[in-house]
Amino acid sequence: MSKRKLETCFSPALFEVEGHTDSIVVIIDILRASSAICTAFANGAESIIPVAEVAEAKKYKSRGYLVAAERDGFVLDFADFGNSPFNFTKEKVTGKTIVYSTTNGTGIINLASPAYMTVIGSFLNLGALTRWLLKQDRNVLLLCAGWKNRFNIEDTLCAGAIAEKLMKSSFYVTICDSTHAAIDLWLLARNDLPGYIEKAAQRTRLRDKKLDDCIGFCLTPDFTDKIPVIKNGVLVGMEILK
Amino acid sequence: MSKRKLETCFSPALFEVEGHTDSIVVIIDILRASSAICTAFANGAESIIPVAEVAEAKKYKSRGYLVAAERDGFVLDFADFGNSPFNFTKEKVTGKTIVYSTTNGTGIINLASPAYMTVIGSFLNLGALTRWLLKQDRNVLLLCAGWKNRFNIEDTLCAGAIAEKLMKSSFYVTICDSTHAAIDLWLLARNDLPGYIEKAAQRTRLRDKKLDDCIGFCLTPDFTDKIPVIKNGVLVGMEILK
Repeated sequence: MSKRKLETCFSPALFEVEGHTDSIVVIIDILRASSAICTAFANGAESIIPVAEVAEAKKYKSRGYLVAAERDGFVLDFADFGNSPFNFTKEKVTGKTIVYSTTNGTGIINLASPAYMTVIGSFLNLGALTRWLLKQDRNVLLLCAGWKNRFNIEDTLCAGAIAEKLMKSSFYVTICDSTHAAIDLWLLARNDLPGYIEKAAQRTRLRDKKLDDCIGFCLTPDFTDKIPVIKNGVLVGMEILK
Repeated sequence: MSKRKLETCFSPALFEVEGHTDSIVVIIDILRASSAICTAFANGAESIIPVAEVAEAKKYKSRGYLVAAERDGFVLDFADFGNSPFNFTKEKVTGKTIVYSTTNGTGIINLASPAYMTVIGSFLNLGALTRWLLKQDRNVLLLCAGWKNRFNIEDTLCAGAIAEKLMKSSFYVTICDSTHAAIDLWLLARNDLPGYIEKAAQRTRLRDKKLDDCIGFCLTPDFTDKIPVIKNGVLVGMEILK
């Protein structure tokens, strides 16, 4: 059996579809989209429909859907709530289909759509995600959402955490400098993740907007055993057995 | 006096011209272009004309210029030599204008051309470069050439070395995650740079092509006090006093 390739991409602007149509792509956007999505499925959401345009989200709202919609940290007036994982409570989301309005997120999902499979990764589903990846005989690409196409620290650390677990097995090889760098930054940060995250620009942005209450939670490993998977453009939860 | 901003860009594909028209851009491509260019000026070259196309380089050759031209590690048949810094000896380059054929390099130079000033950085001119930058009241962007638009370890480490020296002064602030990551990777690697560079894909590529004899040299700090500066598309050497 030939070894699986592991790669990391620090920004959607660096994503190359070539060579990844047979890969599993893991989208990582831990502050806060991928953490919110993992929390929604942990709390029993049925599915999540990502939509790019506010007008589209509004249309879904008028048809009775639960809508999560935020722009630059502000909840849109017609929406039920914003992007904080704390919004996606059991009371609100169990058994529900949620419409999630996210310009960046939808762009990344479209970008990754030629891949064999696209899933959502965060610290919250770290253990389940890596257990599941180890069982798939597929190349893996860790795709960091970054911030406005820039490299960011928080998604890199999560990619590093996933990569470190995968590289401990004998299944993967990597000749990808980004993967080596992500692992080394993760190893440097792992013993004081909240302290290290203080360096991240997004840490400051969320503090300035008083949206940082959820950061400690977003850095919690293994809150859930569900992996959000994209099927025909819609996110559904896949439960991974221990 | 307001603080100067320091930013790092891990790939030309992530370069945003907006906000950098008043900055000094430092182009970093240590294996091997920026090391070769620094060596040429250290050894007395008069100027270097970067050209994108092979045909253009050939035309210069027919007019009597010294031409450095390589594609994928192979010296082009009409050229005087390739991209190894060891080619740019005193005997060959003193007082000469060299035509340097580099597709990537020319692209990056064009990309950075709206900046206030563009210079070439490497370990070889690390001390002179940082001394000079500290004296300029300008924002600084460290632009890593990467490899085929991807993040690479070696340029990141050099950016980290420059950034660490600048951030030790009180002149700069950074809210750039890439800069923080580059500094931390540099601090991790600095005590065994050749050992750490073993992780870099370019290390393996150069070994496979038997072009790695110059790597130790490319990692040598402060071989020269000259900074290559781009003036009207041509590189000239600027000597920095101790």
